[in-house]
Amino acid sequence: MLEQLATFEGSRARMGDAWSLMKELFPLCRSITGAGTRATLAAIGARIPLQIFEVSSGTQVFDWEVPNEWNVREAWIEDSKGQRVVDLRNHTLHLMSYSTPIDRVMSLEELKPHLHSIPEHPEWIPYRTSYYRDNWGFCLPHRQLTELREDQYHVRIDSDLRPGSLSYGEFYVRAATEEEVLLFTHICHPSLCNDNLTGIALATELAAQLQHSNPHFSYRIVFAPGTIGSIAWLAKNEAQVGRVRHGLVLGLAGDRGPLTYKRSRRGDADIDQIAAHVLQEIGDGARLVDFSPYGYDERQLCSPGFNLPVGRLTRTPNNEYPEYHTSADNFSILDEDALAQSLQATAAILRIADRDGIYLNLSPKCEPRLGKRGLFRLTGGRHPGEFEHALLWVLNQSDGTNSLLAISRRSRLPFDVIAAAAEALLGVNLLRRKESGIGSGLAS
Amino acid sequence: MLEQLATFEGSRARMGDAWSLMKELFPLCRSITGAGTRATLAAIGARIPLQIFEVSSGTQVFDWEVPNEWNVREAWIEDSKGQRVVDLRNHTLHLMSYSTPIDRVMSLEELKPHLHSIPEHPEWIPYRTSYYRDNWGFCLPHRQLTELREDQYHVRIDSDLRPGSLSYGEFYVRAATEEEVLLFTHICHPSLCNDNLTGIALATELAAQLQHSNPHFSYRIVFAPGTIGSIAWLAKNEAQVGRVRHGLVLGLAGDRGPLTYKRSRRGDADIDQIAAHVLQEIGDGARLVDFSPYGYDERQLCSPGFNLPVGRLTRTPNNEYPEYHTSADNFSILDEDALAQSLQATAAILRIADRDGIYLNLSPKCEPRLGKRGLFRLTGGRHPGEFEHALLWVLNQSDGTNSLLAISRRSRLPFDVIAAAAEALLGVNLLRRKESGIGSGLAS
Amino acid sequence: MLEQLATFEGSRARMGDAWSLMKELFPLCRSITGAGTRATLAAIGARIPLQIFEVSSGTQVFDWEVPNEWNVREAWIEDSKGQRVVDLRNHTLHLMSYSTPIDRVMSLEELKPHLHSIPEHPEWIPYRTSYYRDNWGFCLPHRQLTELREDQYHVRIDSDLRPGSLSYGEFYVRAATEEEVLLFTHICHPSLCNDNLTGIALATELAAQLQHSNPHFSYRIVFAPGTIGSIAWLAKNEAQVGRVRHGLVLGLAGDRGPLTYKRSRRGDADIDQIAAHVLQEIGDGARLVDFSPYGYDERQLCSPGFNLPVGRLTRTPNNEYPEYHTSADNFSILDEDALAQSLQATAAILRIADRDGIYLNLSPKCEPRLGKRGLFRLTGGRHPGEFEHALLWVLNQSDGTNSLLAISRRSRLPFDVIAAAAEALLGVNLLRRKESGIGSGLAS
Repeated sequence: MLEQLATFEGSRARMGDAWSLMKELFPLCRSITGAGTRATLAAIGARIPLQIFEVSSGTQVFDWEVPNEWNVREAWIEDSKGQRVVDLRNHTLHLMSYSTPIDRVMSLEELKPHLHSIPEHPEWIPYRTSYYRDNWGFCLPHRQLTELREDQYHVRIDSDLRPGSLSYGEFYVRAATEEEVLLFTHICHPSLCNDNLTGIALATELAAQLQHSNPHFSYRIVFAPGTIGSIAWLAKNEAQVGRVRHGLVLGLAGDRGPLTYKRSRRGDADIDQIAAHVLQEIGDGARLVDFSPYGYDERQLCSPGFNLPVGRLTRTPNNEYPEYHTSADNFSILDEDALAQSLQATAAILRIADRDGIYLNLSPKCEPRLGKRGLFRLTGGRHPGEFEHALLWVLNQSDGTNSLLAISRRSRLPFDVIAAAAEALLGVNLLRRKESGIGSGLAS
Repeated sequence: MLEQLATFEGSRARMGDAWSLMKELFPLCRSITGAGTRATLAAIGARIPLQIFEVSSGTQVFDWEVPNEWNVREAWIEDSKGQRVVDLRNHTLHLMSYSTPIDRVMSLEELKPHLHSIPEHPEWIPYRTSYYRDNWGFCLPHRQLTELREDQYHVRIDSDLRPGSLSYGEFYVRAATEEEVLLFTHICHPSLCNDNLTGIALATELAAQLQHSNPHFSYRIVFAPGTIGSIAWLAKNEAQVGRVRHGLVLGLAGDRGPLTYKRSRRGDADIDQIAAHVLQEIGDGARLVDFSPYGYDERQLCSPGFNLPVGRLTRTPNNEYPEYHTSADNFSILDEDALAQSLQATAAILRIADRDGIYLNLSPKCEPRLGKRGLFRLTGGRHPGEFEHALLWVLNQSDGTNSLLAISRRSRLPFDVIAAAAEALLGVNLLRRKESGIGSGLAS
Repeated sequence: MLEQLATFEGSRARMGDAWSLMKELFPLCRSITGAGTRATLAAIGARIPLQIFEVSSGTQVFDWEVPNEWNVREAWIEDSKGQRVVDLRNHTLHLMSYSTPIDRVMSLEELKPHLHSIPEHPEWIPYRTSYYRDNWGFCLPHRQLTELREDQYHVRIDSDLRPGSLSYGEFYVRAATEEEVLLFTHICHPSLCNDNLTGIALATELAAQLQHSNPHFSYRIVFAPGTIGSIAWLAKNEAQVGRVRHGLVLGLAGDRGPLTYKRSRRGDADIDQIAAHVLQEIGDGARLVDFSPYGYDERQLCSPGFNLPVGRLTRTPNNEYPEYHTSADNFSILDEDALAQSLQATAAILRIADRDGIYLNLSPKCEPRLGKRGLFRLTGGRHPGEFEHALLWVLNQSDGTNSLLAISRRSRLPFDVIAAAAEALLGVNLLRRKESGIGSGLAS
């Protein structure tokens, strides 16, 4: 399962498709609802099987309400000479997301409170939203803002905020067990590249491979708008979240910073241990950071009422690189090798998660005779090899408390060798898989 | 609560009163019972409300019995020329505490076994006691002892040991809850300064402020003779000690050594964590030491049958500075800044202890919408500030297991910011205080 | 108990006897069954009381079956000129253990698959066995093997494999309690010195002293063939293994490498903590290693179905010195000081294990008055001594959870002082020994 992607070369070979998807998605004017978001889901759905869900405006989802759907046709500011000072057609970031409609002439003084810029980076356009307060605004380079002279400006936003729905998509592969691995990526950012498109591309490539694999767990990949999307998803799936055995939030996957795994709220979930293992093996500056309640959809998935075993894989985290949430988060800060490594790491984590498990030695009193079962060489006196050691380790530690990953780490033998030893012992009925989860405490 | 004292300047401003109390108390001939100890309690009681308790001689208190009351009128040694060689009137340390009466002439040889000195410090008078064995003795500088020539000495101790009582005082502030913070300081040492008077002065200053505050917990400060006093107190209050949520033994608070917090026997009680936090913030060489069963009244309060969550705050601990238990433990080794810092640290510990607590997020599934409650700014896209982070941390961690201090430490946000966030969330009904104790396991 | 042996000098004085036993045992052709092994047990039994047990061939012991008994009278290879190329009479390692009988002339080509050597060490004879597959073989120096020319070789092995029995011996000292300390050493290796004879000699010296001691626990020392011997012993004693409070596997005790304690599978059993304490005190490079499921009889004793609190004491572990399992493992790699230190360490571990225990303070509320019981000096004011501190530590910590060793480590007072304090407190009825085990979780 995911054997190809779990190598750098295998993931690197997928970058052509990943880039092609991101190029297609970049110009769309996404938000937490509306046409741009639906077009994004359609582009993903053209590549992998995707079920689309619509949640009506006004639906109560825990402490929140799904907002009205927002769509915009045009948005610009014209000076008194009819010159377009700012125009949505030039960049999707120019308009504050969820801006209310307006069509009026006003002075610069009246306009200014509605203009957003970044003085420290005078050439960049900031990304601003106003989902839950009726307001309008434009974002522009600070240099341009400071050059605006006293004048009468015609401000026009042809948008509407009407009852509609919030859209999200699900890719799902059903295995023999309903226990599932859950991946989450957000789809609500407009023309931002690292923060949004890389996560979508990575998840899409994983899905493309997963649909042809035969995994132990079921796999679900959710493409949804940030925050309100995961809140709506949790509200709709509340009764089923106990199925989630492992989860990852994916995003910010293509910049040149090091791989960064953020632990789940639990801190020691299996996914945390698996990710730590994989990042240690990949090296290259990859690092672990502790959970914090700020970030992406792990905020909701790891809220105390759910506390799901969900970590987050990014490269440089949100707000820790200067281009974050600005027009400078474009293709120029991406690197194909970096995105490939993120895909490799995700696949390697899922590959271990899928094969890990707790087993029971069915002959726990003394060692069983491996020689008569063809698993141990028959002339004694010499030191046994790695595989024979792995057999002894799996037998000795499989008392219903130690996962294969734990045995791999304690024995300092590669996970693949331990997993192969477990496979061989299953084959001669010296081992059986423990039914309940890997210490997750969740009903399956 | 204790906001002033919890700053160095606020505590420093109290040093005038502290010194005035210590000057008044220094000359009194204290012991574990008797007139000097009662005069000491009277001086304290002139400054703060103090209830005096008397426990009759002969009362069985666990494995001990309250001894007879000891009082002394005069005590001296005269040589054959009528010269007073040693006289209690010159220094309260000259007489071994609880010396039995005597009025007899004897040779130097007969006298010598009753004379105590410190050869390593020939100018200092040692402090000696004989509470539980009938004996008498004098303490004097070693230089003076070596100069005594053969002679007939008139030894007179006009003391009596008669049924009476042991005295201790309690300051008490009653809050809405009976759960209490317990402070203990000993009052049995005669003219010793750091070891006794600084603890009394510190506790008196705290009491003076506490009586005007409105704390969450009730506060009890016990001024009692060491060992037998705390044993008698525990015997009398055995049924109520379950109320003690946090406790501190105070003493040795004015020397120039670094602040030293000795952990409770539990080692990880809340008070231990709070003290560690405060001492780390104060810095200046402040240090933590592990519990040991030797010291002051923590010996009794932390005996295995009680095991109360009581730590000890001193500067240089008992027996670790040369002047300890000698006449050199006088005002010359005290420092106003040092005592002020001890007072500050104690107040800061109590301030956190009083506001710390475990809370429950009343909207634990996903984040609640803080914007609509006026707690979060409404334009999205920018990084939230410290207070907004604190709100998210308190909500995420308040699952009934994490105290505010634990959240402060995990989030690396100041305790005050976390406490303010909890206050704000209480105000909008997103949080409630958990009823039972902070992991103390004690019935309230 | 074992007071002499627990010092280096005391153990060093026993080396004459140890060497004499090893010299006597060296030439015997031991295997997992047969005459050589019985002769070995007889030599041990001439020195200490030893009960011999025989387990019939064919007996089912867990997943194994006791094999036929193997005995050999002669074994050699003769070239066509009648020259004996290899002869069992020259070295017991020349014959692969459990070789089936043969008496036939064959070519070098036919012979070669049955010849074993070590190319890296061309002068050494390897040690090979084939207990569970019918086969025959000879072992010889690689130099000699490469010099064999094409010829017709007469191969003769006059052995037999017939129903008989597997033999092992037990030394046992019965104390007031049936709870026991179990020592295990293997006796199945032929003329190998460090790997086998040192363990036998060490165990025999311990037994010689134990029979004259009056220990708290019962002691059982098992001399048995490796693997199948401990499997047979466990099968026979399955119902009684709950009695084992501490255990050690002994072997490889005389080489010049550092003392090496291998932790039990539990990792934190009392024996692990005691061994860590003793090895730290001995120093001299002594080291601890984690449990692994490969090694000697701890493989069986620590299989998950038993998981006994059994560690292993060696110097250089199996397979970590070049002479291991070759003819070079002879007297030349042994050192009397090294074996003496191994004996000292084992005795010191047993000495603590025997006296360690969990006690209950019978006067747990406040300190009891030690003065009136003659355990504390009566003039107060001075710092108490080490023994008085030990009394306070034992009283304070004896709440039914802390062993004397734990108290010794927490207080940084020597174990002997803590044990003496406990003894004194037992004498005045302030303490009693807790009945159940030291946290072993085993029924006694």
